[in-house]
Parts: sequence; C-alpha cells; structure tokens
Amino acid sequence: MNQPIHIWIDQLRSGDTRALARAISMVENRAPGSSELLKALFPSTGHARIIGLTGAPGAGKSTLVDQLARFYRRGADNENRTVGIVAVDPTSPYTGGAILGDRIRMQEHFSDPGIYIRSMATRGSLGGLARTTADVATLLDASGRDLILIETVGVGQDEIEIVRLADVTIVILVPGMGDDVQSIKAGIMEIADIFVINKSDHDGADRVEREIRALQSLVLRHDGWTPSIVKTVATEGSGVPELAAAIAEYEAYLKRENLALKKSAQNWQERLVEMLRDAMLEKVRRQFGDGELSRYAAEVAEHKRDPYTLIEELVEEAGKSDKEQIPP
Amino acid sequence: MNQPIHIWIDQLRSGDTRALARAISMVENRAPGSSELLKALFPSTGHARIIGLTGAPGAGKSTLVDQLARFYRRGADNENRTVGIVAVDPTSPYTGGAILGDRIRMQEHFSDPGIYIRSMATRGSLGGLARTTADVATLLDASGRDLILIETVGVGQDEIEIVRLADVTIVILVPGMGDDVQSIKAGIMEIADIFVINKSDHDGADRVEREIRALQSLVLRHDGWTPSIVKTVATEGSGVPELAAAIAEYEAYLKRENLALKKSAQNWQERLVEMLRDAMLEKVRRQFGDGELSRYAAEVAEHKRDPYTLIEELVEEAGKSDKEQIPP
Repeated sequence: MNQPIHIWIDQLRSGDTRALARAISMVENRAPGSSELLKALFPSTGHARIIGLTGAPGAGKSTLVDQLARFYRRGADNENRTVGIVAVDPTSPYTGGAILGDRIRMQEHFSDPGIYIRSMATRGSLGGLARTTADVATLLDASGRDLILIETVGVGQDEIEIVRLADVTIVILVPGMGDDVQSIKAGIMEIADIFVINKSDHDGADRVEREIRALQSLVLRHDGWTPSIVKTVATEGSGVPELAAAIAEYEAYLKRENLALKKSAQNWQERLVEMLRDAMLEKVRRQFGDGELSRYAAEVAEHKRDPYTLIEELVEEAGKSDKEQIPP
Repeated sequence: MNQPIHIWIDQLRSGDTRALARAISMVENRAPGSSELLKALFPSTGHARIIGLTGAPGAGKSTLVDQLARFYRRGADNENRTVGIVAVDPTSPYTGGAILGDRIRMQEHFSDPGIYIRSMATRGSLGGLARTTADVATLLDASGRDLILIETVGVGQDEIEIVRLADVTIVILVPGMGDDVQSIKAGIMEIADIFVINKSDHDGADRVEREIRALQSLVLRHDGWTPSIVKTVATEGSGVPELAAAIAEYEAYLKRENLALKKSAQNWQERLVEMLRDAMLEKVRRQFGDGELSRYAAEVAEHKRDPYTLIEELVEEAGKSDKEQIPP
C-alpha cells in the first residue's frame, strides 16, 4: 500500500486493475496527492475514445452499454479492444459505493478482465460530479483502455455536463415516454450526436423516429452533422452492430472535417472553467476556514450584515492575502 | 424604464408587482446592477417565511402548492397573508420563460394580486440555480410577501440545494412510486421537516407511511425533531389545513428550542460558500477572458499542456494580479 508513487503509476499504466481501482477511489475522494497523480498520468492519455450515453431511467441504458461493451470486446474487427465503463447517477442519494444492480453487472463481466466497471453517485454538496467523472476517464485512459463508455441517468443539466466530456454523445429514447417527451427532446437535440430508440419492438418506435426527424429539421447543428437514429432492442442485442457502425461513421465525419480537435478543445474549455471554479473555492475555504465563514453566516442570519457586500469584501481579501501570508 | 433606482426600490418595497417582476428578471440574468439592487434590498428582508416543497414529477406538487397558497390567502386565521410562489425545474431544458403549465397556473391566480408566481428553469451551464432562487426569494421578501413557497421537481442534489434555503422543507411522496422509492427516501430523510403523502386516496398510502416511520426509526435528526406525516388529496384540497397546522407546529418547535436562527445560519453558511465560488469564478473569467481560456483549452486538447498544473498556475496568478493590473 505504501509503495512509491512511481511504481503505482507504472502499474496503472500497464493496465493493472487494482492500481486503477485505488487511483479512482483517491480521485473520487479528492484525497491528498490525487492532483499529483493526475498530473503524472495526463501525458499518458489521449488514446482512448470516450463515448457518453444518457437517457431517462428505464430506457435500458445499462443493458445497451453492456451489449456495446461485449460487441467491442468480441472484436468483429479483430481489434479486441479493452473497455472501461463509468456508470454515473446524479440523482442517486447514495454518497458512495456501487448500488445493487451495478454489483450484479460487475459480476457478469467478472470473467473478462478486458471490461472494467465503476459506479459513481452524488458526491458532496458542491456538485463536481462532472469533474470527477472526467478525472476517472483520465485514469481509465492512462490505464490503456481503448474505449470508455460513460453512462448517466436522466437528461438534465447534470447529465449534460457529464456527457460533455465525451467524443461521441448518444441519447437513448424509448417509445411511449409520455407527454413530456417533447420537452426532453428539445433539450437534448443540442447534445445528441446519435439517437438510439431502444425497445424499438414496442409500439410507437416509428413515431419517436418521426418526432426526432421533425425536430432535426428545426434545429441546425453548427458542425453540420445530422445525428443518425439507430433502433435497438438491447435485451436481445439487436441493433448493436448498427450502433457501433453509427459511432464509427460519426468519428470518421469528425476526422474528415477536422472537427475532432475543435470539439475536444471546446469540451476542455468548459472543463477548465469548472476546474478553476473548484480550485478558487478550495483556495477561499483554506484561507478563511469554516470557523470564520460560520461567524459571517451567523451575522447574515441575524441581518447584521449584508451578504452581497460581504462576498465582495472576501473576494477582494482573497486576492490580496497571498502576499501577506507567511508560507507554511 | 429609466427612472432612478431609489424610486424603483421604493416601488418594489411597497409591493408593486411590475417593479418586482423587473427586479426578478434582472437578478435571473445577473444583469449589471443586480448586485447593487440586492444590497439595497437586503435590509428590508427577514420578514417572510420560506417554505420549500419538493417531490418527484407527477407527485402533484403544483396542485398542492396552489391549494396551500389559497388556504393562506383565504386566511382562516384572518391574517390575509400575501404569497409568492417560485416554481423551479432544474431538469427542464428550457433556458428561460415560463412553460405552458405555469402560464395556465398564473392565469388562474390572476384575479388575486396577493399571489405572485414565477417559474424558473435551468440557467447557464454553471449551475447557480439554487443561488438565483435564493436571490429571487430575497426580492419577494423585500416586496413584503408574508410567505414564499418554493417548489422544485425531483429529489436530487440540485433540489436539495434549492430547498436548503427554506425555513421549512416539505417532501411530497405518492403511493405506488415503484421500486426505487426506498433509494429516494434514503436521500430525503435528511432534508424533510414534514412529509406529505399526496394522492392518499390511492392504494398504498398506508404502506408509504409505514415505510417513512421505519426509516425515521433508523435516522436520528440532530435537531431532535421527528418530521410529521400529513396525508393529502391536493386535487380536492383535503389535508391542506392539516399541512398548514404541521408547518405551524414545526415553526413553533424551532422557536421554542431556539433553533430558527441556528438553522438560518447553517443555510447561510452554505449559501455564502456558493456565492464565494461564483464570485471568484467571475473574477477569474474577467481576468483571463474567454480568448485566453480557449487558447489554453486548445493546448490541453492537443496534449501540449497538462490541465492540472495549468489550473494551479492560473489560481496563483489570479491571486497576484490584482496589484499588477492597471485600473480601467
């Protein structure tokens, strides 16, 4: 456990699963040293392709992700790619650990060391789930995984932030989602590179397809891509090769149009802003401490102090005191 | 439109609805001057009681909130309180404006100027919905509303942040929510001051009550309060007086145990941290500008730069440059 960090990093780079698991726990908990670990590993990344999948609860996401992972593992193209799966549930109230369903999934893949699954749920109250997911993807990438599948429940803002780090984003819909399908779709038109209509053997699959097509005619993507629509029945594995083909097609499009790097740079800009926000917050918390903040909070609660002016003062102070502070 | 700010502030304080609506739009958009407005109004706040209500989609939240608002307006106790309703939907992909259902609701209350409704959906990609909601509550409070009802869809992290600013938090459940009701409940046990079982004329209402009681025996609140459970049928208005009584009972408990100020101070501590984070981020963005950030993002995307070291450098620079910058 206490081996030097460079040995650990070498193990992780060579694909060792236990070294990877330890690193993920460290990053999830933002434990001391996790920043150094990520710095050391970043040069080894950039090889993996990241695919994000999102959809409402019950859309059959996990089953589809499993099928896609198996498909890539079987290697119809004889490439035998290794896969990492990150299952993120921003709506889960659990603060850590895998929930029952994920444990079962993990056991199913246990016989294949080429598939690694990790579940993540809400951490802390200050958001940051998108950032942690991105850091976990960095670790999987550094460990040599060829493909990283990130699945997340829902289609709200949290999920959009989580899938935004993906090279390819897939939105999973199902027939008969009810009345608010229109409002959901309006929001996801902007993020979906590929639509999957899962459970397409159910009534209404064609209607969902027509609705997507209708919305597509209204919303023009700035990259000129028209998202493909793939029909699947994940429980039977049908449509999965077609989905893999659609992913490959989109990736070829990005390459042909020289858009891959541009998309990645856009994603990184958002991530940098998020990382900056977190880092500034950490700095402020270190500087003032919880004791000082709770004293201020009590004064505001008693209406002795206006919070808006207080924040301006604190921000100004935070800018100054780096020079006044004595190094530890 | 261009009248001096002090006239506008006076109008808002006197309860003028148009002045209020303008101020809310300004705060929602973080328009220039919104911070000055909030500073000027903060001393006029602290009078309103804030009640937060959350529950899964379809739990009948809006109907219950409307009934509660009507009940308070009718003034069984002859107090004739004015009510402000803030309806927040963090899952909505709409970036502004009220959605259809809310427009209909607003029209229903149009004849009663004592009820003011405002809908809010996801704004921007940097979160901040909880903070904006808090600022809108400040405006409603300053405008003399006696009661502020904040309703939000769902029971995830976003919703917890939104309801945390409330003096009283009500979680609405319905019978037959399916298998994941346990996982949802585990997360909300910590935030619910009162449970409502709405649609309690449906099968399974008693089972939901038993489940809450069972969970309550496992989770001990640090303030010693045992959340009451109220059964309602919001569409018929039944259970609403009992809910109002439960709210009054909890408020009396907080007062008796001297907990009201403590709870408010705790809420403010979380809010101050959030405000600090936003303010620091704004400062950093002003300092570096989007051009510089997008140059860095491109370098990271090309793997010419490690983002973790970059962020450390930027944070350090942000601390320094206040002194080096020439004032504009």
